[in-house]
Amino acid sequence: MKRTIVRTGTKSYPVIVHEALLEFDSLPEQLLGDDGRCIVITDENIAELHLSHFEKKLRSIGLKPKVLTIAPGETSKNSRQMLNLAQEMVWQEARRNTPVIALGGGVVGDLAGLVASLYLRGVPFVQVPTTLLAQVDSSIGGKTGIDLPEGKNLLGTFWHPEAVWTWVGFLKTLPAKQVREGLSECLKYGYIMDPAILERSTLIDPKNPLAEGNEIMELIHLCVESKARIVGQDVTDKGKRQFLYFGHRFGHAIEAIAGYKGITHGEAVAIGMTYESLIAESLGIATTGMTADIKERLRTLGLPYAMPRGITVEMLVEGCKRDKKRTGEGIRFALVRQPGQCVLEEIDPSKLLKILRSIG
Amino acid sequence: MKRTIVRTGTKSYPVIVHEALLEFDSLPEQLLGDDGRCIVITDENIAELHLSHFEKKLRSIGLKPKVLTIAPGETSKNSRQMLNLAQEMVWQEARRNTPVIALGGGVVGDLAGLVASLYLRGVPFVQVPTTLLAQVDSSIGGKTGIDLPEGKNLLGTFWHPEAVWTWVGFLKTLPAKQVREGLSECLKYGYIMDPAILERSTLIDPKNPLAEGNEIMELIHLCVESKARIVGQDVTDKGKRQFLYFGHRFGHAIEAIAGYKGITHGEAVAIGMTYESLIAESLGIATTGMTADIKERLRTLGLPYAMPRGITVEMLVEGCKRDKKRTGEGIRFALVRQPGQCVLEEIDPSKLLKILRSIG
Repeated sequence: MKRTIVRTGTKSYPVIVHEALLEFDSLPEQLLGDDGRCIVITDENIAELHLSHFEKKLRSIGLKPKVLTIAPGETSKNSRQMLNLAQEMVWQEARRNTPVIALGGGVVGDLAGLVASLYLRGVPFVQVPTTLLAQVDSSIGGKTGIDLPEGKNLLGTFWHPEAVWTWVGFLKTLPAKQVREGLSECLKYGYIMDPAILERSTLIDPKNPLAEGNEIMELIHLCVESKARIVGQDVTDKGKRQFLYFGHRFGHAIEAIAGYKGITHGEAVAIGMTYESLIAESLGIATTGMTADIKERLRTLGLPYAMPRGITVEMLVEGCKRDKKRTGEGIRFALVRQPGQCVLEEIDPSKLLKILRSIG
Repeated sequence: MKRTIVRTGTKSYPVIVHEALLEFDSLPEQLLGDDGRCIVITDENIAELHLSHFEKKLRSIGLKPKVLTIAPGETSKNSRQMLNLAQEMVWQEARRNTPVIALGGGVVGDLAGLVASLYLRGVPFVQVPTTLLAQVDSSIGGKTGIDLPEGKNLLGTFWHPEAVWTWVGFLKTLPAKQVREGLSECLKYGYIMDPAILERSTLIDPKNPLAEGNEIMELIHLCVESKARIVGQDVTDKGKRQFLYFGHRFGHAIEAIAGYKGITHGEAVAIGMTYESLIAESLGIATTGMTADIKERLRTLGLPYAMPRGITVEMLVEGCKRDKKRTGEGIRFALVRQPGQCVLEEIDPSKLLKILRSIG
């Protein structure tokens, strides 16, 4: 078992990575406040694979779950679904001290977190991430959200969980494509924060992530430590937390241009890291060879690094300009000097276009 | 001009009560972050009475407002309206640093505050309360919310404004009935916190609240000071902030039983204060004569104090049991010992019923 404390301005909470599901001696008081009653939000896929085991375990530690199930996939991350869940909670007579437990990947976690933050102005919340991506990234840091027809994550809150319970066993049933996209985010932590993560990431076999025994647990733990450190220094995403955007400025643009179809988030981030590293090399920020290193690691893991056919540099710059995170005229990038060293850099759109054209 | 600083765990902000609208030498930097662009949310009634004046003033202090207007009344405080406003903000290309300014009463403030807290996970927010109720109560303390079909304020956030700009001139066009409901909340502060407020409240003529010159400004300021003190001690409503529920436990039940028709919030609170004081007297908590004092002041202001015909004690207790703030089995009341002294008291529903029956 590995334990990391995430410290935010107003509260601290543990991220626990363990070999066995919900092996606890005792639970924090705030999760038992409503006589153990709790709301579990999950999706149909996870429910089929893991719910009966999970419910049994919850009962064994004193919780009385009521389960609400949503359809799997990003299309569930909308306002209608959010309201349905909130109304279900009213019908279940959930109170201010009734915790919400999210059992699932990023979609379930973001949606359930938003509901937990809004219901009666906020109830206790627990993340139980079931994908590698959620385990190393979206379950930590308190971001919640839903999409609007106009774009992704346009509405959301910062709502920190009471705990994150990560069980590596969920990865046994995770498709290789989804393991890969989690590994793409692991590489990101390696480049922006902790180079030790790079070697460990490429040790993992996406088709059998548990093959190397405790390796996957160690990897997840190191990523969690990196994320906890960054989030603790900048909870509301105004400064250093933006290091986490390495690969994401272009990644988000690529996803949006592709209409969120045919490419996973992690794949888009992989391509994003490659091209943002090319930008960094061209600006003299990155040491030579950075991009080659990134490409080599992505290749090892079976992740893409070339820009998808049909996406022009003009489209890419337009996509970056539309990014919701923008505040000024420039486009803000997290660029890597060398593994473990990151800087934030504003680049003017016209200059960006010029660099991208020169890269080809 | 009167100025109160509200201190929350994470930020502090000023509540400014002034004689003239928006008389500022300079604005906080965070309101000018998007080149002065800002979103004003108001309702049709206020727009007709005050918008042109308000817009002109905003421009004179360097802001460039884009106005979004909703239909007046509680029925606008729903999820559909919240989403419409958020989508309008996307179309206006509002960014993370584009402030939202709520110009209106409690409905506009609660709704606009929720949108501001959710849009891109939160943008700067300013309250410009136009009713007495909003000026002394709902604009301060960061509570936002919308109603669900199942009940009022079931979804919401805590989102503190950058500032509250209170102009007493708005009260000139406020109907006497709405001035009275504001005065009902003023009396509440008098009973729970600051007895000096009691005399000042009954000096105000609901039909002409500005008749006594600076009296109304002084009254609003004292109420703001009381609320700021309580909120500063318990931002998230887990303890002392519940003093503000004096009159509201029964008040909310009365409103719900009446279907939110035919009785204003302030009127329901007036009746609530009377009956909660009777409870306090019957428990030996309140000094004898408290209820008589409350009734006398309500009568002076033209506010009701008798339970509306058709509301039985059984209905009242049932209504209290359904209150969303409940966590345990008892019903929590804020009871007044004597003006300026308040205590929280859990009362078992069956005991409450017995007391109410004995009161008649």
